[in-house]
Amino acid sequence: MSSPATSLFRRLVLAVCGLRWFRWMATRTPPGRLVASRFVAGETLDQAVDVARALDRQRISGMLDHLGENVTAPEHALAAASSYTQALDRIASERSLDLAISIKLTQLGLDLSRELCVAHVNRIADAAETFGTLVMIDMESHGYVDRTLDVLQAVSAGGRRVGICLQAYLLRTERDAFELPTGCRVRLVKGAYLEPPEVVHDDKREVDLAFARLFATLYERGHPLDVATHDPALIEGVKRHVDGDGWSRVEFQMLYGVRRDLQAKLAGEGYPVRVYVPYGTEWYPYLTRRLAERPANLWFFLSSLARSARS
Amino acid sequence: MSSPATSLFRRLVLAVCGLRWFRWMATRTPPGRLVASRFVAGETLDQAVDVARALDRQRISGMLDHLGENVTAPEHALAAASSYTQALDRIASERSLDLAISIKLTQLGLDLSRELCVAHVNRIADAAETFGTLVMIDMESHGYVDRTLDVLQAVSAGGRRVGICLQAYLLRTERDAFELPTGCRVRLVKGAYLEPPEVVHDDKREVDLAFARLFATLYERGHPLDVATHDPALIEGVKRHVDGDGWSRVEFQMLYGVRRDLQAKLAGEGYPVRVYVPYGTEWYPYLTRRLAERPANLWFFLSSLARSARS
Repeated sequence: MSSPATSLFRRLVLAVCGLRWFRWMATRTPPGRLVASRFVAGETLDQAVDVARALDRQRISGMLDHLGENVTAPEHALAAASSYTQALDRIASERSLDLAISIKLTQLGLDLSRELCVAHVNRIADAAETFGTLVMIDMESHGYVDRTLDVLQAVSAGGRRVGICLQAYLLRTERDAFELPTGCRVRLVKGAYLEPPEVVHDDKREVDLAFARLFATLYERGHPLDVATHDPALIEGVKRHVDGDGWSRVEFQMLYGVRRDLQAKLAGEGYPVRVYVPYGTEWYPYLTRRLAERPANLWFFLSSLARSARS
Repeated sequence: MSSPATSLFRRLVLAVCGLRWFRWMATRTPPGRLVASRFVAGETLDQAVDVARALDRQRISGMLDHLGENVTAPEHALAAASSYTQALDRIASERSLDLAISIKLTQLGLDLSRELCVAHVNRIADAAETFGTLVMIDMESHGYVDRTLDVLQAVSAGGRRVGICLQAYLLRTERDAFELPTGCRVRLVKGAYLEPPEVVHDDKREVDLAFARLFATLYERGHPLDVATHDPALIEGVKRHVDGDGWSRVEFQMLYGVRRDLQAKLAGEGYPVRVYVPYGTEWYPYLTRRLAERPANLWFFLSSLARSARS
């Protein structure tokens, strides 16, 4: 992801997204909000569940993510944790839907205190266990990887089952993959943060090869695996690699609004597909990563803005 | 390896190589033979051992391959088997050199009789065991894969230790990798035969991803592994993936005369490197696969011919 051209594209988009007028336009004007609604399910849990219901009609399951990151006060972490237990209650009442949740540790106070964060994750994991709902811990930028894996170990050592996300573009991931709790569910992604070149692979091709090696390694080590990519060649490889029995623990995952054609196609072919459904009011940082990640996403955004400006 | 462009290149080169005048020029004229000597160690065992000795001075070990394939009479298979036991005797007398041998089953009568072939491989494996020499079975075009794996199983079931080559470009290899004898040494290559499109991956990128998945799978399953590629990105990935202990069973392999700079660099960095040293009078089919495999090899061949025509 950090070939000179890719990295430049990402830097540029993220720089523009950081400008106050752009943020204002994207979050406060009707056309901006309309476009954001392609990638964000809505600002409320109700809207997220509506999206999940629509996906369910396509035989696609969901993973709710109440957006937010890097909280700066314990009461915000507490509020985030409560929003997740609320979501879990709601999931429990929507028994016909297959829904998991994804949490970000900096939203649960990781920047403030490890103990606080572990306590929140434990509380969420306990609430989830009652109805057997899956909880996945998201991975954030490279400075958080050690602390995130540490929280994962602490929560797992306490006998709770939570999954973790690993990012193939980080050089360290190929070591981290060998140190996971046994049987821990892994969501494998390429990675979308703007990282310093010394911590990530040199170019896109190396990221793809690392993804392929990581996938095979984690599969062979018996981890349940979420293959979270929109890359057709990686997806084809996984289809070829996994045998009949393996499909009980391998699932494709994609983001809400990205490659909807591919999501529908895979689900139509009978493969397990889960879509990451982000919701909440704090959606702007999430949106910027999506725009910086794929030229197609940015293009969709800009052309929609231009269309609405003309009309 | 079978993207439209790659496949066309391979088809073209192999077609030209099949022309009688081209074969005559490559095998019978001094410039043709001079160029072939870049990729073939020589016509005799002595010449191959000389090459192995020169490689050894660069801390590179060798794998002798007495060229020949698709014999059509039992006495030719017997002659081939004898040439290998001779090579094994010679290896035993060259104790300072680290040498393995590579055998092709069609050279040992696979087209004539499975039993004949198994008997020859057993004889070679027994001769090799006395001095602990490694015997690797080469993989040939896709029509031979089933029979080759069958001979491997028969020989392994008899308690003999031989290794096998797997080709990442074949779609079936991702299944074959799960069916190998436990602990069997594997030489992983991309594949260089001209194959029908329905048995190989669609394009070069998919072959590379399959190579990465196969590598990680075989590594995780505990197979000793020869990473036989000249592709720097795949090699870098292996360096990153294998930890300290893993290097006791992973080795890089390259072909005599191909990327000599990379061979020397890896050996200089302290990585285990083995070079495949082909020799014998039947070198033309081997040469044509090398020319069709990498534009750089063909370019070297053609420019050398042009130079010698001018001088």
